[in-house]
Amino acid sequence: MKRIVQCVPNFSEGRDLDKIEAIVKPLKNQEGFNLVSYEPDKDYNRTVVTLLGDPEAMVQPLLKFMEKVIEHIDMNKQSGEHPRMGALDVLPFIPISNITMDECVEYAKKMGEEIASSLDVPVFLYAEAAQETARKKLPNIRKGEYEGMKEKIKEPKWKPDYGKADTHPTAGVTGVGARMPLIAYNIDLATDDLDVAKRIARYIRGSSGGFKHIQAGPVFLNERNHVQVTMNILNYKQNPIYRIFEVVKMEAKRFGVEVPSSEIVGLIPKETIELSLKYYYACENKAYKAINDMDTLSNEAKTYLKFRDFDQLKIIEANVE
Amino acid sequence: MKRIVQCVPNFSEGRDLDKIEAIVKPLKNQEGFNLVSYEPDKDYNRTVVTLLGDPEAMVQPLLKFMEKVIEHIDMNKQSGEHPRMGALDVLPFIPISNITMDECVEYAKKMGEEIASSLDVPVFLYAEAAQETARKKLPNIRKGEYEGMKEKIKEPKWKPDYGKADTHPTAGVTGVGARMPLIAYNIDLATDDLDVAKRIARYIRGSSGGFKHIQAGPVFLNERNHVQVTMNILNYKQNPIYRIFEVVKMEAKRFGVEVPSSEIVGLIPKETIELSLKYYYACENKAYKAINDMDTLSNEAKTYLKFRDFDQLKIIEANVE
Repeated sequence: MKRIVQCVPNFSEGRDLDKIEAIVKPLKNQEGFNLVSYEPDKDYNRTVVTLLGDPEAMVQPLLKFMEKVIEHIDMNKQSGEHPRMGALDVLPFIPISNITMDECVEYAKKMGEEIASSLDVPVFLYAEAAQETARKKLPNIRKGEYEGMKEKIKEPKWKPDYGKADTHPTAGVTGVGARMPLIAYNIDLATDDLDVAKRIARYIRGSSGGFKHIQAGPVFLNERNHVQVTMNILNYKQNPIYRIFEVVKMEAKRFGVEVPSSEIVGLIPKETIELSLKYYYACENKAYKAINDMDTLSNEAKTYLKFRDFDQLKIIEANVE
Repeated sequence: MKRIVQCVPNFSEGRDLDKIEAIVKPLKNQEGFNLVSYEPDKDYNRTVVTLLGDPEAMVQPLLKFMEKVIEHIDMNKQSGEHPRMGALDVLPFIPISNITMDECVEYAKKMGEEIASSLDVPVFLYAEAAQETARKKLPNIRKGEYEGMKEKIKEPKWKPDYGKADTHPTAGVTGVGARMPLIAYNIDLATDDLDVAKRIARYIRGSSGGFKHIQAGPVFLNERNHVQVTMNILNYKQNPIYRIFEVVKMEAKRFGVEVPSSEIVGLIPKETIELSLKYYYACENKAYKAINDMDTLSNEAKTYLKFRDFDQLKIIEANVE
């Protein structure tokens, strides 16, 4: 069984396409993992890269990639709408299949050590890789950003996990972490009343007492002319999709509003679908047997979770041959 | 409209009934509030008192009550299974009707100041009345208990909110707080399989990613021969009963298990029922109008939330004429 990790480095250049090409080049056509996508954002001045495959195979190419990041980005001249503390701002490892979170934490530590020792960029471990509670949440570390980090890193409380307590002169610092895959999930409501979406979002999101790993808000879709509850699911094992979908349906009833469909933005691990199918099959008193055909799996997701605009290529595992 | 607060002082004597009678005497037959109950526990060596009524009317009787507490309890000789840091261990104010949490916080501060100045017992403000995050959770303050507090209180971090940084020689210290009413709520499952209750409890409780204010566990009821999900709802506004009841029914479906009934232990504010009736009425497209008759309200709760062994005397407001 192949080990699959999703690795999502974010670097602080989203405008100069020549530079971006030069930076991602070391990640192209490598053995053991795929460069699934790299998406520059001009407003953010930031590019999000997605790799899928064996983390062991990623280590050396990631170091060569980071050399290019340092070569092409000078943080003293960089600005954009997205908060950032370094040229390679963050590098998270996300367990997808046949690999544990603990193993991803080990890869985060390994990468952190390499980045600090061979490239002289101080590293903070964050999320599941954090060694201190205050470093669990990335925004805590990044507060003050590149500019503020020059002083912040000298405080004993903010000594980096790897490297010296002094920022790299042009690349700042890097956050290396391990975390659960984040599921971007939206539930359609058959109404144009934004207040309904607002109230339901408040009922279910962790910050107002709902499910711990749900971030949720209301949105009106101009093109489709209806509202959605738009969400991030930060831990799909503890807050599986079916539970959120069913609770939203339950709450929508009080407004007399139908819930015709839902949608996934980006990619999801197949386990997110399996956890939900297990629930629906059990409700129908049907045994659940592992579905290995990705097309069948995506069709079942459409049937039970009412995913629209969904196909097997939205399942991470379908992107790794 | 009468202001109603529930006040639940806990004192550290649960064995000597003569002493207990002498201690609670100043709370009996007072104007403006009712002494609803006082329940001594021998194992805990602790008595829980419940008052209902106007907080203003409680202030002077509570001070006389505390004089008696100090007169009859010597913490140097006290022991029991319940953790404690003082003769009057805690004194929480709980908003029930026509009064805000902020007003309860003001009463907690007023009582704290009086206790420290007139009876020389240092006071820590806790829960919603806490002035520092570390004091929000009572167990943080009480850690080390009566014995440990003698040194702990001298640390700058544990300077009391009122009174000097030195424990009372026989009464220790007192925690005065304001908090939401805690709802003890159990949902019956028509099965003797404890594992079903265990799994559902895990799905819904805050500590494993579920609803923030729900503490839940499984229990097997010998006399009734079925299992329950047994819960505390720490904030019934953010986690209303109907939502918990409906989610438990939704999850029970996967186990093919019916949810025939649920039960309230102790008393609940009428608002907990109203919040749920509003949901069920809206689902039926019926307007909800305030129900002032407690008997009608308790019957509606039985109909929609399937409360068993319930009557109007379990509604706090029915106990205050």
